[in-house]
Amino acid sequence: MLNEKISMSNKIPVAIIGATGAVGQRFIQLLTNHPTFEIVGLGASDRSEGKRYVDAAHWILDTEIPIKVRNTVLIGSNAEAMSKLPTPPRFMFSALPNDLARDIEPAFAQAGMVVFSNASYYRMGQDIPLVIPEVNWQHLNLIKAQREQRGWSGGIVCNTNCTVSGPAMSLRPLHEAFGIQRVFTVSMQAISGAGYPGVPSLDIYDNVVPFIKNEEEKVEQEAQKLLGKLGASSIEAATFPVSAHCNRVAVIDGHIVTMSVELATKATAEDAARVMRDFRCTMTAGLPMAPEQPIIVRDEPDRPQPRKDRLSGAGRAAGMPTVVGRVRPEPLFGDYGVKFITLAHNTIRGAAGGSILNAEVFVKMGL
Amino acid sequence: MLNEKISMSNKIPVAIIGATGAVGQRFIQLLTNHPTFEIVGLGASDRSEGKRYVDAAHWILDTEIPIKVRNTVLIGSNAEAMSKLPTPPRFMFSALPNDLARDIEPAFAQAGMVVFSNASYYRMGQDIPLVIPEVNWQHLNLIKAQREQRGWSGGIVCNTNCTVSGPAMSLRPLHEAFGIQRVFTVSMQAISGAGYPGVPSLDIYDNVVPFIKNEEEKVEQEAQKLLGKLGASSIEAATFPVSAHCNRVAVIDGHIVTMSVELATKATAEDAARVMRDFRCTMTAGLPMAPEQPIIVRDEPDRPQPRKDRLSGAGRAAGMPTVVGRVRPEPLFGDYGVKFITLAHNTIRGAAGGSILNAEVFVKMGL
Amino acid sequence: MLNEKISMSNKIPVAIIGATGAVGQRFIQLLTNHPTFEIVGLGASDRSEGKRYVDAAHWILDTEIPIKVRNTVLIGSNAEAMSKLPTPPRFMFSALPNDLARDIEPAFAQAGMVVFSNASYYRMGQDIPLVIPEVNWQHLNLIKAQREQRGWSGGIVCNTNCTVSGPAMSLRPLHEAFGIQRVFTVSMQAISGAGYPGVPSLDIYDNVVPFIKNEEEKVEQEAQKLLGKLGASSIEAATFPVSAHCNRVAVIDGHIVTMSVELATKATAEDAARVMRDFRCTMTAGLPMAPEQPIIVRDEPDRPQPRKDRLSGAGRAAGMPTVVGRVRPEPLFGDYGVKFITLAHNTIRGAAGGSILNAEVFVKMGL
Amino acid sequence: MLNEKISMSNKIPVAIIGATGAVGQRFIQLLTNHPTFEIVGLGASDRSEGKRYVDAAHWILDTEIPIKVRNTVLIGSNAEAMSKLPTPPRFMFSALPNDLARDIEPAFAQAGMVVFSNASYYRMGQDIPLVIPEVNWQHLNLIKAQREQRGWSGGIVCNTNCTVSGPAMSLRPLHEAFGIQRVFTVSMQAISGAGYPGVPSLDIYDNVVPFIKNEEEKVEQEAQKLLGKLGASSIEAATFPVSAHCNRVAVIDGHIVTMSVELATKATAEDAARVMRDFRCTMTAGLPMAPEQPIIVRDEPDRPQPRKDRLSGAGRAAGMPTVVGRVRPEPLFGDYGVKFITLAHNTIRGAAGGSILNAEVFVKMGL
Repeated sequence: MLNEKISMSNKIPVAIIGATGAVGQRFIQLLTNHPTFEIVGLGASDRSEGKRYVDAAHWILDTEIPIKVRNTVLIGSNAEAMSKLPTPPRFMFSALPNDLARDIEPAFAQAGMVVFSNASYYRMGQDIPLVIPEVNWQHLNLIKAQREQRGWSGGIVCNTNCTVSGPAMSLRPLHEAFGIQRVFTVSMQAISGAGYPGVPSLDIYDNVVPFIKNEEEKVEQEAQKLLGKLGASSIEAATFPVSAHCNRVAVIDGHIVTMSVELATKATAEDAARVMRDFRCTMTAGLPMAPEQPIIVRDEPDRPQPRKDRLSGAGRAAGMPTVVGRVRPEPLFGDYGVKFITLAHNTIRGAAGGSILNAEVFVKMGL
Repeated sequence: MLNEKISMSNKIPVAIIGATGAVGQRFIQLLTNHPTFEIVGLGASDRSEGKRYVDAAHWILDTEIPIKVRNTVLIGSNAEAMSKLPTPPRFMFSALPNDLARDIEPAFAQAGMVVFSNASYYRMGQDIPLVIPEVNWQHLNLIKAQREQRGWSGGIVCNTNCTVSGPAMSLRPLHEAFGIQRVFTVSMQAISGAGYPGVPSLDIYDNVVPFIKNEEEKVEQEAQKLLGKLGASSIEAATFPVSAHCNRVAVIDGHIVTMSVELATKATAEDAARVMRDFRCTMTAGLPMAPEQPIIVRDEPDRPQPRKDRLSGAGRAAGMPTVVGRVRPEPLFGDYGVKFITLAHNTIRGAAGGSILNAEVFVKMGL
Repeated sequence: MLNEKISMSNKIPVAIIGATGAVGQRFIQLLTNHPTFEIVGLGASDRSEGKRYVDAAHWILDTEIPIKVRNTVLIGSNAEAMSKLPTPPRFMFSALPNDLARDIEPAFAQAGMVVFSNASYYRMGQDIPLVIPEVNWQHLNLIKAQREQRGWSGGIVCNTNCTVSGPAMSLRPLHEAFGIQRVFTVSMQAISGAGYPGVPSLDIYDNVVPFIKNEEEKVEQEAQKLLGKLGASSIEAATFPVSAHCNRVAVIDGHIVTMSVELATKATAEDAARVMRDFRCTMTAGLPMAPEQPIIVRDEPDRPQPRKDRLSGAGRAAGMPTVVGRVRPEPLFGDYGVKFITLAHNTIRGAAGGSILNAEVFVKMGL
Repeated sequence: MLNEKISMSNKIPVAIIGATGAVGQRFIQLLTNHPTFEIVGLGASDRSEGKRYVDAAHWILDTEIPIKVRNTVLIGSNAEAMSKLPTPPRFMFSALPNDLARDIEPAFAQAGMVVFSNASYYRMGQDIPLVIPEVNWQHLNLIKAQREQRGWSGGIVCNTNCTVSGPAMSLRPLHEAFGIQRVFTVSMQAISGAGYPGVPSLDIYDNVVPFIKNEEEKVEQEAQKLLGKLGASSIEAATFPVSAHCNRVAVIDGHIVTMSVELATKATAEDAARVMRDFRCTMTAGLPMAPEQPIIVRDEPDRPQPRKDRLSGAGRAAGMPTVVGRVRPEPLFGDYGVKFITLAHNTIRGAAGGSILNAEVFVKMGL
């Protein structure tokens, strides 16, 4: 039934794997009525295969399950099942956990499909583009080397860890304008970042959990790769050190990160605020999921706040901008220091929405 | 009625001013059955004067109002009213807001009473001891210069800002053992830190507020004063810079602060953990409110946590230790860097309990 | 500036009084781009008069302040100030507290404006229509008697208490189909129902407050008036008794009410679900704020839930339907008993949205 | 090591099965330093057998794991393993889930041990005492018939569902004084009632879940059994109907239940409050876990509240009383109606603490 519609459209057929989980649900929500992509298949675990979506998924979003997804029958999250669909998908949006992504994602790439992955397993791979388009869309070109080396006709493009997206976005214009020497980050992360069922209420209620497994390493390494340079067949990571301290707090959506940045050249807080506010990306301009301003800089003394600002951005791009606030001097780095806060929506920009924008740019670049 | 009992005891008569608010309630809770002090008066605002405590206070603690406090009639928060009590108080525990503390506290000091204050108004005064006993009990000697200069027979001793107590405690042994060069702090602070009614639920629910007015300045300055040296008639503040970023999170009690410290000499995370764990204070040893260990260092990967660890410490000292965890290297400072978390109970150690311990040491020092 | 636009439109000019508070903000949000009404004035308290809206209001919604409202200068909440506007408003949406509504609302009515009020002060007045359109739009006709008796050219139309809106809506079709004998209700109410700053976080966090002042009386009386019959110059209230127990819980928006209803004639749970699901209102059909289905009946065992279902309804009517679930037999009333849950959005249907729909019907009825 | 101590004491040796879960943790906390019982064994699932307690349990309470329990090696939750302990336990406190309780609990009873069970599996069994001592300690005598019929030398005594404990306690004196005709209950239940990991934070944050599987049936049936009469070999359940509507709210501990009661004889709210306040139980008087007053009736308009009142009761009995408030007329039942709220701590009185008190009475009765 999903496929009937497709025959009439010129949209690119896509599928979602890991479609019943928290990120899978966001993919469904954000791909519904998407101007470029059309969902033609929903892949799930063996346990859910053959069930209707509404029966297999514990829907946690505050919008309804889209009508045409409700009754869609889930298929296996594998290339064979996907190939047999009336309209086989060309892109695969993957919300698989790491252990499954390891084997399943390459199989899709091998079979000619491009996987836009939210798993962390391949992110740090030499020939794997790890992309936030406004930060480093050029890295998508790495897909050519990847295909050549691995003999794939498809490919794997990775999304970043949800926590690093705000920091990396804010660092991009600062790095260009002033150069970056060192970065301190402390995150306050939303519970939805742990998926569903995820964080038990008894753990987080009236509490802060000052530890998230492997998260600090991811933030530190991915920031360097994102701000690195594209070489012939790999990324030369940025060399400035990044320190991360990751905490879970009682917020539903939206990761706050406090930033203390030592720049390579002198700059005032006003300078820093200006380059972040003026930052634009010509490559993403006009794409459906791209916000008009990648970075919104707020002037109020007490913003951004997760509940009030996580859905900043208009229309389809709501939840895609990074919201920055409290830009001020960082006394520890003298004339070179700047201090601020970033907020990014962890399941939109930091997960499903980020992947979709990656795919939109991928199409625009003709890859 | 409160005073009848006193005549039979050898306890020091004390009063609480600002007795109906959040900190005032903690004073009442912690001074009940105290071995050294006996409450002989409760001071309130004009609005509440003459009312019974139970009628004037909106009690927010999860223990009951002590029986003998329930029906106590509130008097004015002024020296005259206090002097007329059957047993006039010698110590005044002040939970006054800043604007009232400004005029009222000196009046008590003038009238011969020693004020143990939670207000910030006098904290940074040249001749005002700002004290966490385990960190700098020696500073209490400043009271002599204060009395001389101001012609007071009483005096003012200040408690620190609630947020700085954990950081200052953890820095004390590190400073002694290795010297401190720079300190980054990011706080996640409990709602009770804002008093009652304090933070509206609509502001903090499903949210983080990344700003608390004047708080960052206090943390930065008070840390330096606390770790400074006692001179003839003032404190020579420590010179290492401190950077603070203060946030409000949805936790009832207990302030978490992430710490990134650059030391003056090389040290491993194990070294740092050891000196914090081994830290003891001979001056406070055995005092009623003093914890056996000023710093509890935990080894679990995900502790301390506010709800689980804020009441660490045995008996009367529950809530008085600083709990430290996740001691690990800080990559940004190479061999000189150490990174960890502190947790301190903001209304016990960071407010009422801290003041009472100050008073206990004051008595022991014979001041 | 707000008024320039108006000259070009045929919309009805309206103003909001009490525009800076929680309900006032909802009025602004819901009236922005409204097809029938155009905001021409924003009234505030004396304290805020003359300030720009953005400076006077502590905006708590998770959408931005509409651009043209941001810089609007607030005027006094009185008829004189409103009359001097370039385009004087014909309707007044009132988010005033009770004590102010008492004197201000009649003054507007006297001056020829129709006040759509959220205050409770006039709700139980003999000649005051208290209206949820789908339940009792006919009662709006009472405005004629009101004008005659009071010599007003304008008038006052009241909105219900936010808690009663879900119960009253669900009882309407049951009363018609089966008759109602008795109703038990227990509410679990959101914090936004208390306005801003409203409920202190220290009161509601990790807690339930099983009491809301005057709320139970309102639910019991207003339900009877809403389901009563329009007489010549007053409403003959329904006579079935209603019992309410009102609680505050830690939810941002959306009041849940459990209902146990004794019917006058036998009916199964399926019968009850059917009449609620099939309930339609011809008078509201097609109006901008009117939901297609006044009552959405859900079949899942665990719905409705505030966070997931409070914004049910499409487009402008999101938050306007009453969501019903768990329709099942009530054992205590034998064959006459039915038990279910209602959910209504307290600041949309239960406040600002309800008033706007009242105004839309008022216009449609030519009053 | 646990057993060394025992040899020197005259305490009754007991074990806990299901010792690592949420209720198992409460058993450990409440049995530590218990004057009558000494823990000699901790039983866990196969997965945890052989591990140290501290390594196997995710401790969720805000007190520390007692020192001597920390390093205790877990054994299997079966009679054979328990019999091999140096001091075999005579009582078994069971925190097993239903599916395991089914087979394991009878095996212990067969092997001569008395199981005090928190599982629901056997609660409604003809010859199984379901007991809240102050309500129906006499029912413990049913153990004799149970032993005879089943050929057991040990036995099974059941604890009630956590939600019914407050209602049943409050109904006991009302039933005696006035007789009960009908009871409406609506619960607002804490997240700890679902164990650990239990309720996902994404389900309950900013939300109410108006459904808990099988809970309403349990409340309705268990209330009738608890207030029933002891016959020769079974309980003759009370016949008044009970209606329950069960909800989960964002509270850590403490179940609130609103009660609307129709009495068999006329009584005022004052009468009802008086008989609840005056209710005492001679059988439990003086037992370690027994509160001095089984029911605390509060007069404030807005109490009891979970966070403030759940730990009512002195010393070891903290969390054992039922706290009642807002006793007032129930209009729907005319002169026969009374309406109030009960609060009971669900993991103390409603689980571990209730079982321990059952065991204390069991010993006192010489069973």
